[in-house]
Amino acid sequence: MPQYKVPMRDMRFLLNEVFDYASHYKTLPNGEEATPDMVEAILSECARLCENTIAPLYQSGDEEGCKLEDGKVSTPKGFKAAYDEYVAGGWQGLSHPVEYGGQGLPMSLGLFKQEMLGTANWSFAMYPGLSLGAMNTIMLHGTDEQKNTFLTPLTEGTWAGTMCLTEPQCGTDLGQVKTRAVPDGNGGYKITGTKIFISSGDHDLTENVVHIVLARLPDAPPGTKGISLFIVPKYLPGKIGEDNGVSVGALEKKMGIKASATCVMNFDDATGFLIGPENEGLECMFTFMNSARIGTAMQGVCHAELSFQGALPYAKERRSMRALGGKQEPDKNADAIIHHGDVRRMLLTQKAIAEGGRAMLYFTAQYADQMIAGILEGDKKKQEYWDGQLGFLTPILKGFLTEKGLDCANLGMQVFGGHGYIREHGMEQISRDARISTLYEGTTGIQALDLLGRKVLLMTRGKCVREFSQKLVDFGTRNMTNSTLRPYAWKLLKIAAQWNYLTTRIMLTAAKNRDVVSTASADFLMYSGYAMMAYFWALMAAKAQEKIATGGEQPKEFYEAKLATAEFYFEHMLPQAKGHADSMLKPTKVMMQLKPEHFSFDYE
Amino acid sequence: MPQYKVPMRDMRFLLNEVFDYASHYKTLPNGEEATPDMVEAILSECARLCENTIAPLYQSGDEEGCKLEDGKVSTPKGFKAAYDEYVAGGWQGLSHPVEYGGQGLPMSLGLFKQEMLGTANWSFAMYPGLSLGAMNTIMLHGTDEQKNTFLTPLTEGTWAGTMCLTEPQCGTDLGQVKTRAVPDGNGGYKITGTKIFISSGDHDLTENVVHIVLARLPDAPPGTKGISLFIVPKYLPGKIGEDNGVSVGALEKKMGIKASATCVMNFDDATGFLIGPENEGLECMFTFMNSARIGTAMQGVCHAELSFQGALPYAKERRSMRALGGKQEPDKNADAIIHHGDVRRMLLTQKAIAEGGRAMLYFTAQYADQMIAGILEGDKKKQEYWDGQLGFLTPILKGFLTEKGLDCANLGMQVFGGHGYIREHGMEQISRDARISTLYEGTTGIQALDLLGRKVLLMTRGKCVREFSQKLVDFGTRNMTNSTLRPYAWKLLKIAAQWNYLTTRIMLTAAKNRDVVSTASADFLMYSGYAMMAYFWALMAAKAQEKIATGGEQPKEFYEAKLATAEFYFEHMLPQAKGHADSMLKPTKVMMQLKPEHFSFDYE
Repeated sequence: MPQYKVPMRDMRFLLNEVFDYASHYKTLPNGEEATPDMVEAILSECARLCENTIAPLYQSGDEEGCKLEDGKVSTPKGFKAAYDEYVAGGWQGLSHPVEYGGQGLPMSLGLFKQEMLGTANWSFAMYPGLSLGAMNTIMLHGTDEQKNTFLTPLTEGTWAGTMCLTEPQCGTDLGQVKTRAVPDGNGGYKITGTKIFISSGDHDLTENVVHIVLARLPDAPPGTKGISLFIVPKYLPGKIGEDNGVSVGALEKKMGIKASATCVMNFDDATGFLIGPENEGLECMFTFMNSARIGTAMQGVCHAELSFQGALPYAKERRSMRALGGKQEPDKNADAIIHHGDVRRMLLTQKAIAEGGRAMLYFTAQYADQMIAGILEGDKKKQEYWDGQLGFLTPILKGFLTEKGLDCANLGMQVFGGHGYIREHGMEQISRDARISTLYEGTTGIQALDLLGRKVLLMTRGKCVREFSQKLVDFGTRNMTNSTLRPYAWKLLKIAAQWNYLTTRIMLTAAKNRDVVSTASADFLMYSGYAMMAYFWALMAAKAQEKIATGGEQPKEFYEAKLATAEFYFEHMLPQAKGHADSMLKPTKVMMQLKPEHFSFDYE
Repeated sequence: MPQYKVPMRDMRFLLNEVFDYASHYKTLPNGEEATPDMVEAILSECARLCENTIAPLYQSGDEEGCKLEDGKVSTPKGFKAAYDEYVAGGWQGLSHPVEYGGQGLPMSLGLFKQEMLGTANWSFAMYPGLSLGAMNTIMLHGTDEQKNTFLTPLTEGTWAGTMCLTEPQCGTDLGQVKTRAVPDGNGGYKITGTKIFISSGDHDLTENVVHIVLARLPDAPPGTKGISLFIVPKYLPGKIGEDNGVSVGALEKKMGIKASATCVMNFDDATGFLIGPENEGLECMFTFMNSARIGTAMQGVCHAELSFQGALPYAKERRSMRALGGKQEPDKNADAIIHHGDVRRMLLTQKAIAEGGRAMLYFTAQYADQMIAGILEGDKKKQEYWDGQLGFLTPILKGFLTEKGLDCANLGMQVFGGHGYIREHGMEQISRDARISTLYEGTTGIQALDLLGRKVLLMTRGKCVREFSQKLVDFGTRNMTNSTLRPYAWKLLKIAAQWNYLTTRIMLTAAKNRDVVSTASADFLMYSGYAMMAYFWALMAAKAQEKIATGGEQPKEFYEAKLATAEFYFEHMLPQAKGHADSMLKPTKVMMQLKPEHFSFDYE
């Protein structure tokens, strides 16, 4: 069982050396208090909570799972006490307004916190994580009264929140939503319908649960333009314990994240409150979609990291056979398996994804901070500019990092051999928990369509690729004469050219044949992920080389490991982008030609 | 939940059209009775058993799992009755000698049977599957008395068997085996030690369990040259119910295959019988290693097929959004998701692996038949020749097909979206069950080392690649003027050249630097898998084209789907081989340079 240790050295490297968060925070309206000392204190304190209180509940939470009895959901042993400690520390409101009980710090700090919580115990982290979605929605679209009533207890963490979108007949295609909302004549609405896959739909961690629900008004137009957003609390304010027509229909049995309560929620004439304008529920819901996707993208990093933390010590202890290059530990009866090349391949893949993914998240978190700054400053243009920037990054992060995170969780099991399949070692749980990440918050296929169809083609006609790839070009031209970095510089220039070429080619094809958006999207997404991560590994290699050269910060091993991992990424992982580049330009008919009725496994 | 339907049409295509099994069986000493009519009758009967009796226990077996009570293991509800039906049908001895109660048919028929059993219910299939290992070992190395005593009830299926290799300190590295065997003065031995991960170690399906155990004699040399093989029955013959010092220490809790009993077995002065020569236990054990690996490789095909059978109907029923190329079902509120390119990508990948993998197995099964023919004819040279041929194929099949089968099981979940993660739909069980396949019978890493290090470099100096790739060259030169097949012909010629080039390059490097065998092995294995499967897809495309042209057998859709899937394989899957080709030639230092003590996630 991995004993989670927060990778503080790596986090400090990104914060202080690669991205200069101190300067970044000085530009933010809510960044004044986020001094380096304060950031260090917050992260260290959070690390202690995660390592000592939350991580120890990871395996027991999976074994026990949640229970539904007498209509009430209970979380596994220890969760309530841990959550109380979390609330007592003021962690829920870290990045939310002081006037509603929060600490008013930048959003990025909340993301760093969420990474620690999520690596320690993803199921646990989902309870406060889902509340964030409800908090953000109310903060942005709620009336002052709604904020006072709901946002304060949510920010304090004494209440929790959910997002109720999915229904049995629809997940992605929310135009099919059927849940109804009828005005009750008192300024409220009666909500009736069934929602499924509601994470944290009910539990025993808080005295109330505030649901944000998509529903249709009686006169609403069909499809996506007829959906409104409602606040529907389990208990109405001031009436804690009194039935409001909100009940748990069932608790789903899942492959993993078993300590997270996934509920079927029934709303039966439940009283709710309209939030935001009528029939604009989807727009309101999607305001924070990019931030929510960063939170899910993070799961890839969390599970790559946790699985790596389990696999590495095992690879150093377990002895089997001799290294092919010659005995490494001649006084032992066999060499530790870390001396075998193929085991190193797996460990380095995990390290490359965990650290490369973390760099992508820390970079993107600055954009999220800027988007929030636009909101806080009432600068709509600034908000939209940064949200647009985020809009290109988040499907790549969500799609690529969760797919690669799942691969890494599987590699961690693989390092353990047959022992990886046995529950007590805890490695298989990481794979099961990681498996949800490519499915929820939009499957990988949906991220791919959003990226290629909307962000790249429809909204920017390739400009987002041109802009981001310029960073690769800049790095390349800047470092062509640096002997360590030259190979990366050269590869980034090639990748930048190819990325734009592929985008243009698809754009030209799509003008005549829309199918290409769908047939090329998965390859385009994965290619973009490899390209983007290459840039961040180059950036980290450059910083590591600089630190080694100046003999500055310590330890040297940290920087040397960075250089070695960067080299591994460029030589052994980036080549996988080739297959995607090749595949995405193939004629659409190759995928589309087989008629559905001829697509079978059972021909007569 | 997929309702397993045996893909009889595809099996007949391979048997009768692609590989001409009728002619093949005529060349075998045990092939006379395997006439086309007999084969058809056997497969149809087996399909009925698997579809009606064994498949329905798949999900319930997972939910219930095995239990250990009072030292005895019980299998899930229904398993015993299904097993009795299996035994009554004479299925266990299908490919084993008539004189010991079998039907004496060729081994390949046993493999086809095993595919159906395994797709219907992999956990169930493991009970008779493990017995096959024990049967083969006794058949080849046992004395006449041992055969009469043990082989007959095993062949009839009234007893079951296991293979006891792994111990807590070693799995791959069997030289570390500690279990001891001391002569008891009566011609037997007293066996003492602990074995782990013993599939079917104990259960309630048969009255006795016969363990084949690796152990050390008192004067044995250390390492692999001091290991002998013993038959150690749960109950001694004639003493059913009397304790023989064989007990179940624990039942492992696993990620999947929960209806298969994975036991810790304790041998405590248990009486056993030496099988084969002293200190040559490993050689004896490995006689049938290639056949055992075909059986495990098959799991990749089984789970790709089963997951495809779950995902395809769902993709035809579930409606979400509109196809990008235009509305496909304008009278419905949304199009079925099979109209989306990315969903087709996933389904076609499953179909390509299930059918391409099945072709690889059916081809390889003929080699296994020839190897057995060598044994039956007492022709050691023939046996060794075909075992050598198998030795090149089996690590590729086992490594590549199980890795790809696992990918396909995950894609099946992905087609279901969030519903794939919910247990009741049965898709996540397939992923959990499939996950073991890359771990047992030698991990993928071990298959890769066996392939590159032993089979390709040490034993044949690249000859096995030269020989197999000649098939690709022959196909290529034969079909360069066929307009449908030309693109495949051309690609096979390129792949054949590249495969040999890569082999030679690695061979030259390995002469100076042995580490390359380890650092390149995983990429070489996967590349070889893609190359080999390309050949079989070309072969199937050629046959499909011929059948369409001659207007012979029906239905035409079957052949058109073959052509479409072949095209998909060549255009969208084969490109993934490029990354592997690129990666395997990188300098070994990229993987080997980081010192173990600097390999960390927790730098100060």
